Amino acid sequence: MRKPRLMTPGPAPVPEDVLLELARPVIHHRSAEAKQVIVEVAEGLKQVFQTKNEVMILTASGTGAMEAAAVNTVPPGAKAIVLNAGWFGSRWASICKAHGINAVSIDFEWGTPVDPARVAEALRAHPDAVAVMGTLSETSTGTGHPIEAIGKLVAATEAVFLVDGISGVGAMECRTDDWGIDILCVGSQKALMLPPGLAFVTVSPKAWAKIDAFEAHSFYFNLKSARKKMKEYDTPFTPAHTLILGLRASVRRLLAEGIENVWSRHKLMSEACQAGVRALGLELFSSRPAEGLTAFRVPEGLKDSAIRDKLTERFGITTVGGQDKLKGKIVRVGHMGYMDELDVISGLAALEMVLADLGFDIKPGAGVTAAQQIFIGRKQAAVQA
Amino acid sequence: MRKPRLMTPGPAPVPEDVLLELARPVIHHRSAEAKQVIVEVAEGLKQVFQTKNEVMILTASGTGAMEAAAVNTVPPGAKAIVLNAGWFGSRWASICKAHGINAVSIDFEWGTPVDPARVAEALRAHPDAVAVMGTLSETSTGTGHPIEAIGKLVAATEAVFLVDGISGVGAMECRTDDWGIDILCVGSQKALMLPPGLAFVTVSPKAWAKIDAFEAHSFYFNLKSARKKMKEYDTPFTPAHTLILGLRASVRRLLAEGIENVWSRHKLMSEACQAGVRALGLELFSSRPAEGLTAFRVPEGLKDSAIRDKLTERFGITTVGGQDKLKGKIVRVGHMGYMDELDVISGLAALEMVLADLGFDIKPGAGVTAAQQIFIGRKQAAVQA
Repeated sequence: MRKPRLMTPGPAPVPEDVLLELARPVIHHRSAEAKQVIVEVAEGLKQVFQTKNEVMILTASGTGAMEAAAVNTVPPGAKAIVLNAGWFGSRWASICKAHGINAVSIDFEWGTPVDPARVAEALRAHPDAVAVMGTLSETSTGTGHPIEAIGKLVAATEAVFLVDGISGVGAMECRTDDWGIDILCVGSQKALMLPPGLAFVTVSPKAWAKIDAFEAHSFYFNLKSARKKMKEYDTPFTPAHTLILGLRASVRRLLAEGIENVWSRHKLMSEACQAGVRALGLELFSSRPAEGLTAFRVPEGLKDSAIRDKLTERFGITTVGGQDKLKGKIVRVGHMGYMDELDVISGLAALEMVLADLGFDIKPGAGVTAAQQIFIGRKQAAVQA
Repeated sequence: MRKPRLMTPGPAPVPEDVLLELARPVIHHRSAEAKQVIVEVAEGLKQVFQTKNEVMILTASGTGAMEAAAVNTVPPGAKAIVLNAGWFGSRWASICKAHGINAVSIDFEWGTPVDPARVAEALRAHPDAVAVMGTLSETSTGTGHPIEAIGKLVAATEAVFLVDGISGVGAMECRTDDWGIDILCVGSQKALMLPPGLAFVTVSPKAWAKIDAFEAHSFYFNLKSARKKMKEYDTPFTPAHTLILGLRASVRRLLAEGIENVWSRHKLMSEACQAGVRALGLELFSSRPAEGLTAFRVPEGLKDSAIRDKLTERFGITTVGGQDKLKGKIVRVGHMGYMDELDVISGLAALEMVLADLGFDIKPGAGVTAAQQIFIGRKQAAVQA
């Protein structure tokens, strides 16, 4: 017997009741029943994303939401500042390139956070930048970026702040309006606890002003069309409606738990996972870890594939390795969405046993114990408070 | 009790075993297991689409596939001939407009088929056209277009033939390679018996030559990236993987039935539905009906919404009305995908009862009988052959 355990930084596990929604007979996407579903998820997502702005629903991967954000706000030939500290930061630059947007890439070492001081400097050097493109959680390095601080800087300029929140939203604090995020891009398959296939963008009045100022070279990702249809709780094209049905169930779960509690749960799992990994003598890759995943360096003398394959073979656990220049150098473990304390402990226990198997010198139980101490400590602190 | 019966020209009913695939725990889209699924569906879809060309899988509505086809083959400023005989024909023109493609629209009366003679004329008048954009089944009017004849004309030129097969493929004969279709665009929610959320394009060598000749202004719908990843049975971005799992089940069904038998089943349902509608004294809207849906004119003195609402209230049947200039003028009934003879007979029986209720003068049983005569006659002809 091998129980499958999905511990990747997206897709993430989906609750059984959400999965069962996906198996319901298909209904027409423009029926009264379907509209009612969109009304509920559109309003619910505003709470999840902490925004009063409209939320547009796209049938696409998260990258589609990023392209929609970029191509609708920045005309070809205009300038955008790209905050690039990993594979997904560089995706903004690739999207700009495809659309003839003049991307000024501010590069940071992979595994380190974006430094707001350098953003301020870039904004001063490029007052003509139409947009700043950033990342809440850089999935390729497991790094959380200081979006609140950057948002304050961008808000003081004419530029709009576009944020890839795909692996971050739900897994870490993100206050769209308070932090000055003009367009937040989200994917369904991470902390929103759905399979992949839907993407979302929130759009601020400041962003709408940019969008209304020119005709974007996009038909499918045209946000003007999306806004027009969303006023009637509809979409311009046939949406992945079964996923929207599932979304209703997952949004209900998130709101029942309370979004701040959802963030706290992830923060705790993240701290416990980091403590466990460190207690095993492993080195975290990021100097400012994201809260939906943990990335650690592959220890000297071991191959990442050996660790990951053994996790799968013995325990049904799926993790991912490094991308691009990090290939073979790190292992990334997801703990976002439908996951709790015991999932993190199970993952650490499995990692301990696999490392022991591979001859790596660890103290069995050390990782699990370190994680438990975090969970116990937090509980006690909550009781005392 | 009200049993839901989805009789819209997309989405169409999905078999229960396919629905249950969608409720399986999510797996990682780059795992060995996921790759195996893509291998199977990519090969299976070639048979369904009758092509030796590669099939690309996109996470999008069918419109995304159309945009991918247009934007990757026709550079901005270049010319395309659009065959426009309905709402979806005009969508090609809208996509061209968004991308600065010079669309020469050859317009036909809604409800009539594209006339190949006028296509030949347009090709002569515009030898610089890079593409011809057509529609297999115009969903807005319920018309099937003579794609084989048009394909032969386009094949003799330098232009590529892009065909929106979204509501046609699977529901009516479509031989991609034999008919000279360079890019066939397909959506998941029609005769492929899946919920919406996936789209497909087949790409011929002639189309790849156009694609390789310039850099398309699209990141998410870039077919060069899709081709590169598809060589490893992967996709450039996280795909709607649960839908791909469902697709495997539906493709297995299509191949088990045999694609020519699938076409015959739809042809028969279509003829029976047309005969039934006519026997009730209703007028078909199209002079060359498509085979996945039937559109009839709303009879004098009745409102389309009265017919459609009563079908829903009494029998749980969902149909759709007219789009754009056909609003209120026609009713469209889908009979594609997971549907058989008795579904058509049920739909006609319901229509009879609803029309009688509304005071429309019909002979009860006339529609059902006419449909049965088609089904019986075809069966007898098959036995005699």
